[in-house]
Amino acid sequence: MVAILDHGYVEVVESWGSDERIIEAARMSTGKGFLGWGPTCKTCGLNPGNRGELCGVRTASDPGVPHADAPGDEKLLRYLWENKHQTPFEMAGMTIEVQAPIFVFREWHRHRVPFGYNEMSARYTPLPDVSYIPTVDRLMVNSKTNKQAGTIKGAGELTDENAEKFRRRVNDVYRLVEEIYQEALQDGVPKEVARIHLPVGRYSRMRATSNLRGWLAFLALRMAPSAQWEIRQYANAVGDIIAEKFPRTWELFAERKAA
Amino acid sequence: MVAILDHGYVEVVESWGSDERIIEAARMSTGKGFLGWGPTCKTCGLNPGNRGELCGVRTASDPGVPHADAPGDEKLLRYLWENKHQTPFEMAGMTIEVQAPIFVFREWHRHRVPFGYNEMSARYTPLPDVSYIPTVDRLMVNSKTNKQAGTIKGAGELTDENAEKFRRRVNDVYRLVEEIYQEALQDGVPKEVARIHLPVGRYSRMRATSNLRGWLAFLALRMAPSAQWEIRQYANAVGDIIAEKFPRTWELFAERKAA
Amino acid sequence: MVAILDHGYVEVVESWGSDERIIEAARMSTGKGFLGWGPTCKTCGLNPGNRGELCGVRTASDPGVPHADAPGDEKLLRYLWENKHQTPFEMAGMTIEVQAPIFVFREWHRHRVPFGYNEMSARYTPLPDVSYIPTVDRLMVNSKTNKQAGTIKGAGELTDENAEKFRRRVNDVYRLVEEIYQEALQDGVPKEVARIHLPVGRYSRMRATSNLRGWLAFLALRMAPSAQWEIRQYANAVGDIIAEKFPRTWELFAERKAA
Amino acid sequence: MVAILDHGYVEVVESWGSDERIIEAARMSTGKGFLGWGPTCKTCGLNPGNRGELCGVRTASDPGVPHADAPGDEKLLRYLWENKHQTPFEMAGMTIEVQAPIFVFREWHRHRVPFGYNEMSARYTPLPDVSYIPTVDRLMVNSKTNKQAGTIKGAGELTDENAEKFRRRVNDVYRLVEEIYQEALQDGVPKEVARIHLPVGRYSRMRATSNLRGWLAFLALRMAPSAQWEIRQYANAVGDIIAEKFPRTWELFAERKAA
Repeated sequence: MVAILDHGYVEVVESWGSDERIIEAARMSTGKGFLGWGPTCKTCGLNPGNRGELCGVRTASDPGVPHADAPGDEKLLRYLWENKHQTPFEMAGMTIEVQAPIFVFREWHRHRVPFGYNEMSARYTPLPDVSYIPTVDRLMVNSKTNKQAGTIKGAGELTDENAEKFRRRVNDVYRLVEEIYQEALQDGVPKEVARIHLPVGRYSRMRATSNLRGWLAFLALRMAPSAQWEIRQYANAVGDIIAEKFPRTWELFAERKAA
Repeated sequence: MVAILDHGYVEVVESWGSDERIIEAARMSTGKGFLGWGPTCKTCGLNPGNRGELCGVRTASDPGVPHADAPGDEKLLRYLWENKHQTPFEMAGMTIEVQAPIFVFREWHRHRVPFGYNEMSARYTPLPDVSYIPTVDRLMVNSKTNKQAGTIKGAGELTDENAEKFRRRVNDVYRLVEEIYQEALQDGVPKEVARIHLPVGRYSRMRATSNLRGWLAFLALRMAPSAQWEIRQYANAVGDIIAEKFPRTWELFAERKAA
Repeated sequence: MVAILDHGYVEVVESWGSDERIIEAARMSTGKGFLGWGPTCKTCGLNPGNRGELCGVRTASDPGVPHADAPGDEKLLRYLWENKHQTPFEMAGMTIEVQAPIFVFREWHRHRVPFGYNEMSARYTPLPDVSYIPTVDRLMVNSKTNKQAGTIKGAGELTDENAEKFRRRVNDVYRLVEEIYQEALQDGVPKEVARIHLPVGRYSRMRATSNLRGWLAFLALRMAPSAQWEIRQYANAVGDIIAEKFPRTWELFAERKAA
Repeated sequence: MVAILDHGYVEVVESWGSDERIIEAARMSTGKGFLGWGPTCKTCGLNPGNRGELCGVRTASDPGVPHADAPGDEKLLRYLWENKHQTPFEMAGMTIEVQAPIFVFREWHRHRVPFGYNEMSARYTPLPDVSYIPTVDRLMVNSKTNKQAGTIKGAGELTDENAEKFRRRVNDVYRLVEEIYQEALQDGVPKEVARIHLPVGRYSRMRATSNLRGWLAFLALRMAPSAQWEIRQYANAVGDIIAEKFPRTWELFAERKAA
């Protein structure tokens, strides 16, 4: 489990498939399977652990030849990636559990195909009293790469005092909101209506599932500098998990992002 | 434009396809097209406006036979519907514009395939100061059909006084929230963070598009008694539009719902 | 690997998720997890292996009470299934490899969301010389439940002799087709055009992946009596795999199918 | 209707949305609508037909200023396109009818989301006796850009004579196939099995529907030099329709393709 923001987290539930499975699926087109990561020997086709050995040594009379290096299936993986043959990347995937503020989920849920979601529902259970308060540092982050997402026209330069004031006032309003919520629930206001004044900074929880193609499309948008800082923290954590589970695919993704 | 709740609306942007197009698409399987709504004459195959005429009258010596009634393509439409042949219903569709509280959009956006959405973004523009306050009558609606969505255990019976109190307190907190929002925007807090304490009852606006199959799946869930009262008001308005644009399909949908 | 028809097969590549995962996802709505398959004890909440033990026995002075039976999470699984809460079933899934005639793949590929496919391509590799010839018994199966799929109007009653003749003629034409194919490939006709006269009864191979919701929708259509006999054989094999991997979900699916 | 190959066609059934609708949807994010195609006047905001007029002339004493050119909403359309904000392109779409060989449909149907298809079915109706025979010129087209799709290793250089021989032999086998098909249908072989030896070059017919985002993704793949020549002819025809219905979007698409 990776902690995100003040009260959020991302946790793997499970993953399936692998870099190898992607190759296997792509090779369906020619009827072959996964041949091995490189370097492989051009002469014997193997991927020898010990490069010092000779290739094809079989008898004492045949001293054999040295292994001749050739790239392995990482070449095909790169080809798929660079030429946007994306369907083989649907053969792997991942389910995670996430706790994040509602406004982060609102952006997340715009990713429709091939995602599946199951989220906590304020209709069925009173939401826990956990809400997001940004740090002063975060409030000072004014998007340079995405001007639209910045301050309004005519706004002052944000001072430390004003940032602190915002945090204080938000905190106060969160407490008031919770008080009204609890009172309404006790008074017999149905849960589904008693929550209408809860803020989009309130934390919720969900499971999200997708194939790898979907996760990479999500990351391409949500790790970008133009993405909101908060969802970027979640995207980075998702990226770390993918890097671990699908290291060769991740390497290709990271390259493109860097380019 | 149809007004919904205190400040919401649903408005058609455009629709495409028709009940006839659905028949045409289904008939691709046998290579025929739309034959006509009934009753048609079994003998001449036509759908005569004037049933008093004789069928196939051509010459004076041949007095002809009366038209023999047979059902028209509404029979195929019903067959498709009742046997869940849903792909022909993808050949029609509709785009609408909706203004609704955020918590309604949160439910709406769970409908993924084949929906498309474009919504107002608090990252890019300060949200208008429009929020939802339920009426006392609505607060008194405690879901009978969906107990989970009702009051919490141990809650009192909701009185008129307490309902009014909730409305007042929600209104007060809305005003305070807006004051903090405007102050933060002026102080130079970036728009995307200044909105974290805005309530899920705040109105937002979107365009939503889908094919007819998608809209009917949406309505099946969101017009049901177990749906939250607020989204049901929107679903009913969407239903009225579909009833007007696709009257024969609507009739079949309404039958199933009634059953 | 399960053999299907004369040269086909279905083989599991991998599956993910489980009946338990489906419960866990559904429980996100109330913030709880998987509680256990039943029966569980109403008093202590446990699912005791030994029903003879007393519930909550802790001390000599408290003799305890017997366990009180209550259903476990199979009750929730049934509720989800019967009320068509389908999103939790997106949290599990399966990838398989299939060899089948092209006309079977043509029906299979109509299943779009949430399926992913990677198939052998006649553009890239000469297709192996493997084609489908139905048995006499299969040719005698005239769909009773789906008249449209039956014989043409005015056709004779199929005799054993005519069935055998059809098999022979089909076999002959397959051989001729292959001869022309090989000749064209040798003559320098590009692979992608040299294959245009290959029959839809030719075998191809693919990997297919989907979440469990998708597989069950596939089975609902393709195990039905109105499905073509050949794809039904494949669907039955897929069903057997699901029955093994997701036994409790399968039981619910099988019930509905039987109803 | 546009004729394609020897017996195929593409025909528009209907389209919806427009370049303007795409702008309107994108502007939901800031709550504004379509402002007008350019050039617009920076001073008065209008898009004056007669550039010779002065901007804002109201009274004799105020002679006004000339219009100052500024780009109109084509600037936003370009921004959306170049930054891959694709959801607004889901607000328009198109339904077409297509007659093409089965092997073309096989490639077409790999486009899953957001496409819908309804195709002629050999289970329900005997397929018309129409099959594809490539011209000698087409047979001579050996993919230079996609070597995998070319000839097999060790193949000869295709001569005119061999190309003609292939055409003749394919034509002969088509006739034989049809003879066996008709005989089997008459003998009482069910339609769904009597067709197993029909070639993938046989024509079928379908309606296909998608939003504009889907169509452009289809064209990006199927108009590419690496696409099979036959489906490229269909893709080009689809492109012509889009160019007519959505001229500004098409211009942007064509630019990228050229780049």
